Amino acid sequence: MTEMTSADRTPFDDIRALVATLPGPDRDAVAMVAERDATLTKPAGSLGRLEHLVSWLAAWQGKGQPSLDRPLVCVFAGSHGVAARGVSAYPTEVNRQMLENFAAGGGAINQICAAYGLGFKVFDLAIDLPTGDITTGPAFDEKACVATMAFGMEAVAAGTDCLAVGEMGIGNTTIAAAIYAALYGGEAAHWVGRGTGVDDPGLARKVAAVEAALAHHAGHLDDPLEVLARLGGREIAAMAGAILAARLQRVPVVLDGYVATAAAAILHALDSSLLDHCLAGHVSAEGAHADVLERLGLVPLLALGMRLGEGSGAAMAMGLLKGALACHRDMATFAQAGVSGRSAG
Amino acid sequence: MTEMTSADRTPFDDIRALVATLPGPDRDAVAMVAERDATLTKPAGSLGRLEHLVSWLAAWQGKGQPSLDRPLVCVFAGSHGVAARGVSAYPTEVNRQMLENFAAGGGAINQICAAYGLGFKVFDLAIDLPTGDITTGPAFDEKACVATMAFGMEAVAAGTDCLAVGEMGIGNTTIAAAIYAALYGGEAAHWVGRGTGVDDPGLARKVAAVEAALAHHAGHLDDPLEVLARLGGREIAAMAGAILAARLQRVPVVLDGYVATAAAAILHALDSSLLDHCLAGHVSAEGAHADVLERLGLVPLLALGMRLGEGSGAAMAMGLLKGALACHRDMATFAQAGVSGRSAG
Repeated sequence: MTEMTSADRTPFDDIRALVATLPGPDRDAVAMVAERDATLTKPAGSLGRLEHLVSWLAAWQGKGQPSLDRPLVCVFAGSHGVAARGVSAYPTEVNRQMLENFAAGGGAINQICAAYGLGFKVFDLAIDLPTGDITTGPAFDEKACVATMAFGMEAVAAGTDCLAVGEMGIGNTTIAAAIYAALYGGEAAHWVGRGTGVDDPGLARKVAAVEAALAHHAGHLDDPLEVLARLGGREIAAMAGAILAARLQRVPVVLDGYVATAAAAILHALDSSLLDHCLAGHVSAEGAHADVLERLGLVPLLALGMRLGEGSGAAMAMGLLKGALACHRDMATFAQAGVSGRSAG
Repeated sequence: MTEMTSADRTPFDDIRALVATLPGPDRDAVAMVAERDATLTKPAGSLGRLEHLVSWLAAWQGKGQPSLDRPLVCVFAGSHGVAARGVSAYPTEVNRQMLENFAAGGGAINQICAAYGLGFKVFDLAIDLPTGDITTGPAFDEKACVATMAFGMEAVAAGTDCLAVGEMGIGNTTIAAAIYAALYGGEAAHWVGRGTGVDDPGLARKVAAVEAALAHHAGHLDDPLEVLARLGGREIAAMAGAILAARLQRVPVVLDGYVATAAAAILHALDSSLLDHCLAGHVSAEGAHADVLERLGLVPLLALGMRLGEGSGAAMAMGLLKGALACHRDMATFAQAGVSGRSAG
């Protein structure tokens, strides 16, 4: 094995080195959950996926008694040069206006967080400074891309035991579609959806933008991190950083929809075990999200036809997690309740 | 139209008369919800089914500003003569023990209600007095059946704005399977599942019990209310009463799983519009629940592989309702937040 000197290393090499150090699941914690589950006053397996969710929390928190004491929803907001190509139903000034709406507590995500007692934090990723138009050049360079990933890693710095990852950024469903097309091939039209609700001409402009981006960057899209820098955006890079940092800090992650999953897809392309600590909160109505989740081996918890972003689907899923954990943590055991076990016959 | 004298009327006639008086949806309330929804700071339709849930609450509460101030989970507990045929993995004394567990706050349903702030009430339907063994006679007679339906109607008496309907009763997945087989035909084995987790011989005994019940009551199963009295049980009748009373009192209903849906199926067979105020909280892992829901035209909100009963799946769904309503009720409008609407182009 060759040791590189720091002079040889590029920022992407630092990310690859980090990926090689990420921890796996805590099997002792999973065994502790299974042991307690078998004593609870219910037939074995009768809570279905709620039981699996508790095991998953334990595996990635590394705690036999998993917690949801500090659940946190992080929304990463970015701005995209490609928005100038008319790929969204909304103007780019909505980015800044929506950040203000979040700060004032007026967004959908604010209400969902309030309903379920979830912490909420917004990362403003230079929202007034769009990344490069991906149809004519890279979104940003390698150094800026990795710096933004590092910024996203701050999501878990304040301490959380479960992180929901979401985003906001006019034009970013076009960005996500371009990433999927680069990673998985196929027609641009397959990956593109209506986003916030573009009409038919808008949809055609989205498809054209993705095709133009793939053509412009052809021959430079083999490395997933290169895909991120060339076709991505700041919120995508920051979410990828947040997901990585969560793995390092033993924080399970709930992914939001179509755009958040693009960050996950970049990581999965680097190492297919990199999303083992991630739950797909929901399957979006947008584009080919269901197809992407299948490629990532993720089974969404909810299918509600949502396509808002803002972490809203992930936050709804966190609401379910609270119920799942409450059952495991607080139910009586057969012994405590004096309930008879299974018949012998 | 012939007016019957009270002497001619049977208890089932009273139920049929009640069914004829049930109110429909409040279209003005639905219009008010749509009007407000269009002003909220999100793309139209982007909250998907969450938006439909709010419309549904409004339609059946008859309120343009729907509420979830007093959500209530009711669990109806019954005891079944057919349990003596070895159709369950658990002995019948578990019925009483689980009622005590609920009262002490130790059941799964207690934790889910606590997690989402839901009221909880248990109806003990003569749990120590099993209904007749349906393989050799009727569960109960017409008068007792309707009296139990009337008892179930008390579920909404204390005042609630959304009712979740669930059940508990060793042997009652066999009862539900018999009801489905009577209503829909087909092989008994199609409708029977493993319930609390019977082994293969137990599963064979369940199928045999359903076949025996259908054979014994053959020729008397054309009237859905007759199906209820002959093949049902007290918790099934009480749930049917609760669902009817909720419609009358303008209380939307969230159905739990495989067994609770049997009560709904009886009502649907009486009048296919009778479940319009009902939401299928989830699709159970049990038996042919998905098939039944499709026949009833109900699309389940959750698919988590749950098969516990106790109203647990319905209560999880109520947790989602809280998030859905919070968005509609508390989000900022475009005007309030100063957010730009859709681009002209």
